[in-house]
Amino acid sequence: MPEAHAARRARLAARVGECGADAALITHLINVRYLTGLASSNAAVLVVTGAAGPQGAPSAVLATDTRYALTARRCCPDVELITERNVAASLVALAARRGLRRILFEAHVVTVEEHAALVDDTSCAAADAASAAGVELAPLGRQVEELRMAKDAEEIAAIRHACGLSCEALGQVLPSIRPGITEKQLAVALERRMVDLGADKPGFATIVASGPNSAIPHHVPADRPLSHGDLVTIDFGACYAGYHADMTRTIAIGEPATWQRDLHELVAAAQRAGMAAVRHGAHVARVDAAARDLIVEAGHGEHFGHGLGHGVGLEIHEAPLMHHDGTGTLGDRVSVTVEPGVYLQGLGGVRIEDTLVVRAGTEPAELLTTTTKELLVV
Amino acid sequence: MPEAHAARRARLAARVGECGADAALITHLINVRYLTGLASSNAAVLVVTGAAGPQGAPSAVLATDTRYALTARRCCPDVELITERNVAASLVALAARRGLRRILFEAHVVTVEEHAALVDDTSCAAADAASAAGVELAPLGRQVEELRMAKDAEEIAAIRHACGLSCEALGQVLPSIRPGITEKQLAVALERRMVDLGADKPGFATIVASGPNSAIPHHVPADRPLSHGDLVTIDFGACYAGYHADMTRTIAIGEPATWQRDLHELVAAAQRAGMAAVRHGAHVARVDAAARDLIVEAGHGEHFGHGLGHGVGLEIHEAPLMHHDGTGTLGDRVSVTVEPGVYLQGLGGVRIEDTLVVRAGTEPAELLTTTTKELLVV
Repeated sequence: MPEAHAARRARLAARVGECGADAALITHLINVRYLTGLASSNAAVLVVTGAAGPQGAPSAVLATDTRYALTARRCCPDVELITERNVAASLVALAARRGLRRILFEAHVVTVEEHAALVDDTSCAAADAASAAGVELAPLGRQVEELRMAKDAEEIAAIRHACGLSCEALGQVLPSIRPGITEKQLAVALERRMVDLGADKPGFATIVASGPNSAIPHHVPADRPLSHGDLVTIDFGACYAGYHADMTRTIAIGEPATWQRDLHELVAAAQRAGMAAVRHGAHVARVDAAARDLIVEAGHGEHFGHGLGHGVGLEIHEAPLMHHDGTGTLGDRVSVTVEPGVYLQGLGGVRIEDTLVVRAGTEPAELLTTTTKELLVV
Repeated sequence: MPEAHAARRARLAARVGECGADAALITHLINVRYLTGLASSNAAVLVVTGAAGPQGAPSAVLATDTRYALTARRCCPDVELITERNVAASLVALAARRGLRRILFEAHVVTVEEHAALVDDTSCAAADAASAAGVELAPLGRQVEELRMAKDAEEIAAIRHACGLSCEALGQVLPSIRPGITEKQLAVALERRMVDLGADKPGFATIVASGPNSAIPHHVPADRPLSHGDLVTIDFGACYAGYHADMTRTIAIGEPATWQRDLHELVAAAQRAGMAAVRHGAHVARVDAAARDLIVEAGHGEHFGHGLGHGVGLEIHEAPLMHHDGTGTLGDRVSVTVEPGVYLQGLGGVRIEDTLVVRAGTEPAELLTTTTKELLVV
């Protein structure tokens, strides 16, 4: 979809122009993929404003090394390509040769060492043809990350497909969730099922946390066998076409104790309240509060130590963050998770998580992870 | 093995002292793991020299957030722990409170934005108790990466185990390498077998490149079925206890053509020559040349576009790099790969790769990936 990528670059070029700069040097590999479609371990793209470009229209130059050159030509035939190992320095040198002066760079990605090398080039007194003398580097900020918040139709379709795969995989492994299977075995089975169903790969390391381990939000699956009386938290999601799903369900092994049922019902109610608050224009801290207030009222405020959710897309965690101290509102076509949890140390915990897409003028938000949120008892 | 980690920190502290500094702020997560044993997505460690420390002996402070605090206490009980989300800034502030003045940081890891935030703190005029005023930050260089080159006994044991697992997995999937299985299916089968045999996970994305794809060194496995007449390059390795194996074999599907046999024999001869050159004190460019010369003499110099090998350890690619323009010599207990390849565009290619450990006074280097390098015909 070269047109979608061109439209994204045009949006970035407009922002760069508004900052009074000639171009943006994008080196965050995820952002390069977003702007060009190229997934690579070594690439950068220079996005040039219409005012600074040759034809008065925004343009771009993609740099990658020989390993990815063929793929680059295939996925963005409309972008000028240079094949160089030192992608950032090559693009800055090229910008200098073309008379570009003020270039914005990603200060949250470029290391101090990389920056020093670029600045050395740009301040080089004895400028040869390849030198970048005369170029001024200034921080771009997280402009591409901000653009990435509003997903286009293809992106939403990919996230929806990743979520569908994830739900189907959980359904298929459900019969093997029985006392005796270890956390690790269950995590491996779930990840394999997602790949068998067409996922690129698991989107992140699957969490299976059983019994007392379910009180540890980021527990790493171990050799502990699931046992009668456990709560088991399963946090997982597929990656499909580069886009992520993120979902969590908590399951009871054997008839749950009253405290387990109560805890699950509390978190489920908080999760419903959070989902209802996910709407176009809602302040992220208000969304967090909608769920958190219920948990605090129930006396478990201190047992819910993380934020309510986060954006999901090319990265498993991306903007916007929905924390109690978060800033900003939910825009149109933003995909976010809603994942309250209550963790009782030594005893166990419950987390329930869905992935949703916000749409202006359509409420409620679209639920992409449709597996039931009833407490499953196996 | 807290003692091993303490010994590593003492070696780093000595280097920091030689640089005239009080402490090193380590933020590269792999380096934090190397120095403390803690595998975390958010951690940093401050290593303080004996001269600057409280008891005249080197000391350390580890910072991580609540998710990893329990694990941190378990894996490095001998290190002072602070639980903070903003790990680097917290350690700099703590250093300032303790009167440390000159702190070395990892300029190849810290971003421009992170550095600006630390420097803002350190230059804060209205210093409160938590401020880092008065601290001077200077680049450390790749000192920890240099220390990591020489592996200790536990590290070598982990790499050996990872290599053993990898060889065993390849042996077990060999019967399924037949015409009809796709590159992707074979890659998935191999990765699953490694995990079933006890690997933490595949150490990197497995490469299965068949037929013309075998001419692409970093081919991503696709839906192409293996076919009669193919050369198939399989580049893979397990990760075990955080340490990596790296190996490549090229297999022929059906009786190979003469050019395929000849190409395989050429690369195998170059690989043997490279392995023989891997010895204590050898210059890395000489090792590269030992293999490359044979390939150049055979007229294929331009078809061997990458370096001969690289260090292997907590990272799949680490120091030392064995390239034609590399610098330095192979030290004692360094683990490296030897992986020449010849790639004929449109036709196919051959790569053969082993992981070895250099030891002073013992030649040849220990071969860890013991699967035969005869051309396997299936």
